[in-house]
Amino acid sequence: MNAPASPHNLRKPLSAEFIDALRAVFGERLSTADAVREQHGRDESPYPPMPPDAVVFVKTTDEVALVVSLCACHRVPLIPYGVGSSLEGHLLALQGGVSVDLSQMNRVLAINPEDLTVTVQAGVTRKQLNQEIRDTGFFFPIDPGADATIGGMTATGASGTNAVRYGTMRENVLALQVVTGEGKIVRTARRAKKSSAGYDLTRLFVGSEGTLGVITELTLRVYPQPEAVSAASCSFPTVEDAVQTTIATIQMGIPIARCELLDALTVKAVNVRDKLGLPEMPLLLFEFHGSAAGVSEQAAMVEEIAREHGAAAFEWATRPEDRTRLWEARHNAYFACLQLKPGCRSFTTDVCVPISRLAECIAETIRDTEQSSLPAPILGHVGDGNFHCAILADPSKPEELVEAERLNELIVARALAMDGTCTGEHGVGMHKMKFLRQEHGDDALELMARIKRSFDPLDILNPGKVVRV
Amino acid sequence: MNAPASPHNLRKPLSAEFIDALRAVFGERLSTADAVREQHGRDESPYPPMPPDAVVFVKTTDEVALVVSLCACHRVPLIPYGVGSSLEGHLLALQGGVSVDLSQMNRVLAINPEDLTVTVQAGVTRKQLNQEIRDTGFFFPIDPGADATIGGMTATGASGTNAVRYGTMRENVLALQVVTGEGKIVRTARRAKKSSAGYDLTRLFVGSEGTLGVITELTLRVYPQPEAVSAASCSFPTVEDAVQTTIATIQMGIPIARCELLDALTVKAVNVRDKLGLPEMPLLLFEFHGSAAGVSEQAAMVEEIAREHGAAAFEWATRPEDRTRLWEARHNAYFACLQLKPGCRSFTTDVCVPISRLAECIAETIRDTEQSSLPAPILGHVGDGNFHCAILADPSKPEELVEAERLNELIVARALAMDGTCTGEHGVGMHKMKFLRQEHGDDALELMARIKRSFDPLDILNPGKVVRV
Repeated sequence: MNAPASPHNLRKPLSAEFIDALRAVFGERLSTADAVREQHGRDESPYPPMPPDAVVFVKTTDEVALVVSLCACHRVPLIPYGVGSSLEGHLLALQGGVSVDLSQMNRVLAINPEDLTVTVQAGVTRKQLNQEIRDTGFFFPIDPGADATIGGMTATGASGTNAVRYGTMRENVLALQVVTGEGKIVRTARRAKKSSAGYDLTRLFVGSEGTLGVITELTLRVYPQPEAVSAASCSFPTVEDAVQTTIATIQMGIPIARCELLDALTVKAVNVRDKLGLPEMPLLLFEFHGSAAGVSEQAAMVEEIAREHGAAAFEWATRPEDRTRLWEARHNAYFACLQLKPGCRSFTTDVCVPISRLAECIAETIRDTEQSSLPAPILGHVGDGNFHCAILADPSKPEELVEAERLNELIVARALAMDGTCTGEHGVGMHKMKFLRQEHGDDALELMARIKRSFDPLDILNPGKVVRV
Repeated sequence: MNAPASPHNLRKPLSAEFIDALRAVFGERLSTADAVREQHGRDESPYPPMPPDAVVFVKTTDEVALVVSLCACHRVPLIPYGVGSSLEGHLLALQGGVSVDLSQMNRVLAINPEDLTVTVQAGVTRKQLNQEIRDTGFFFPIDPGADATIGGMTATGASGTNAVRYGTMRENVLALQVVTGEGKIVRTARRAKKSSAGYDLTRLFVGSEGTLGVITELTLRVYPQPEAVSAASCSFPTVEDAVQTTIATIQMGIPIARCELLDALTVKAVNVRDKLGLPEMPLLLFEFHGSAAGVSEQAAMVEEIAREHGAAAFEWATRPEDRTRLWEARHNAYFACLQLKPGCRSFTTDVCVPISRLAECIAETIRDTEQSSLPAPILGHVGDGNFHCAILADPSKPEELVEAERLNELIVARALAMDGTCTGEHGVGMHKMKFLRQEHGDDALELMARIKRSFDPLDILNPGKVVRV
């Protein structure tokens, strides 16, 4: 993947005055070491790193406000950083500047089980959060796979395996504390479950990828841990059968908690990595949440639908250890796929289409990938119409990068033609900016650019990402 | 309720040139008749009418674009109009201008049961929509009581009785077609169930009350009609008991579809209007959706919780006609309350608080209203922490208006102190603008104002509402 044209032209070295001002506040928590900068200038995308000039490790919202104010004063770009698990080049320091590492802002500030809410600092990760609230009987469902920070998941508009039942970050963030481009600290909403009090700043910051402000605190919805959980895996002769099973399940309104597709190649990869003996055929993984009776009822209905669509075997995993093994394999599928081709990186597509078009969309995608020189296993959150194609390319081979990008563009164009989106949950970053105009049109892009310009008139907040101004 | 200071100073008569241009396009569908203007210059709020200078009845998005372009060219304000059921003076023509009546844009454009979506023009009402999709086996759950238009419900950020289970308009609008302040036609999103493709324009227009653009088409989520529905009503010795029952139900994660509170005074009003014989005590109305077994299970759990909180009687209404009677009474409760005091108007509060504070919030509100000279029945969507106090005042008596506003401010201040919002679902309009700053603070208001200025630089889109620029 090529870096965008001459980004380094935009890069100006930080002034000694600016660095001194930062060091006076942060001392050891300011780093300009190569290794630290390099780590903060990359994510899980196939882009080569573009390090920031400096990294600061912030501990409080006031410190974030101070960094932003200094950056505004000196016209220095800044990029919020969680754990670096984004997939589209969100974190790359195109114009240099400061990476604001929020991972030390990792306190759960308030647990309000009586209101089904928690308030956390942006650097709390989703696993940490669930660990800390486990004893309350509640859980936070959004699970994008990676143990991302809650701030990063919000900035990206993440979702993942549980979204089919519990929604995405958009539906599960109640309120944010944000530092604006001028270093002001703003709270976007109160802790009420719903509100019509003015423009929805909360949802505007969800998915804004650090380009409109720095998210520092979040109030989230949590859910009672289900009384009963069961999981099942089910192999199908074709991807079409698996997808049709999903569609019928959704259309009947069965409140499945998770519904994941792995194509035969992904199953193969998972078998190798996790030493499983799954049949190397298209596979659906289901999870059911509810009362004991409710879970049995849901599962029986889904089993019947699956059998009508030629399911080979419907296997239960009601024991927690079996469930964990199955879902760990799913979560590691991305890494399992990478091992199919040593030395490769994955160009991961993320289209999402209306579910009625999903079977067709995946079938045509498989036809494309079968004709390609690159392996491209498919997996996805099919209950939402969202799937990923992990196009495996060796970044040292230009012809493979070209082929990966060709496939990527083909898949996005097909999704858009089916009234779908170029990204269901990974966000735009650098890599999908070219698709936004195709998806939304010039006039909608102009509205987005106006928001960007009015929130960040100096263009210092993660510049060069999401929308061009 | 006093009109804001000298709005008529801002009013300039429409030029003959502008009127001629409109008439050339709309002919008979342009009206400057007093009765028509008067009808379009009021809503269900207690404000006296402020009529627009003209009303146009549009039939297509292109016509809306044309009206907006003409208004932009001549710097004439415009106000989108659905059925006039807003409650906070949203529609009043503070600066005159044109009311754009969308009620003739009332076509259901696409029904996609396979994707659980429908696409409608903005003037379709919620009852019409449910009528038109009934045979598909799906329904649109959002139900604010009034038979409002879908466009108006979206512009207001409405919700209502079903929100506790199905969410608000925010969660149920997938995509919008909007005419911008420059007369451009924009689509905010595709029809995919989720997307992270750029800033969330959809959610920004939800709740924007016609101040950022004119919503002309909407794609909505619909849901399978539940296999089984049952309803129950349940009387309690105190409001506290009823609210504690609600809180326990929510905290246990029981997926109730509706949970409505009527205080004793509201029950009395409903008994008179609808000739019911309900005990004149605080009442909860429940509705359960699901499979036959699921509904029984939910209802049994709620009944047990209610009995633990001193419920006097738990009465079932499984027959559709009994259910309809109960819910019609609930829907008409607002009008029943108005009849408690002939000639009055209702100052309807709309606070929403974290549910753990709800019992306290309502109890203190009742103490205030009991000490007031004005009757103020309480009813609300307690499952969401949202309730309304219908403060009944005679608009011809200045002392009653002062007292109503005093109560209103007291109730809002209490909700804000409890980390709640001044409006759960009615929106801001004119009446709640003063509370927005208290709720969000200066810096958040400045962000909202920037959005307004950048989307509507001429300040012609429903000017003087939501945020001051």
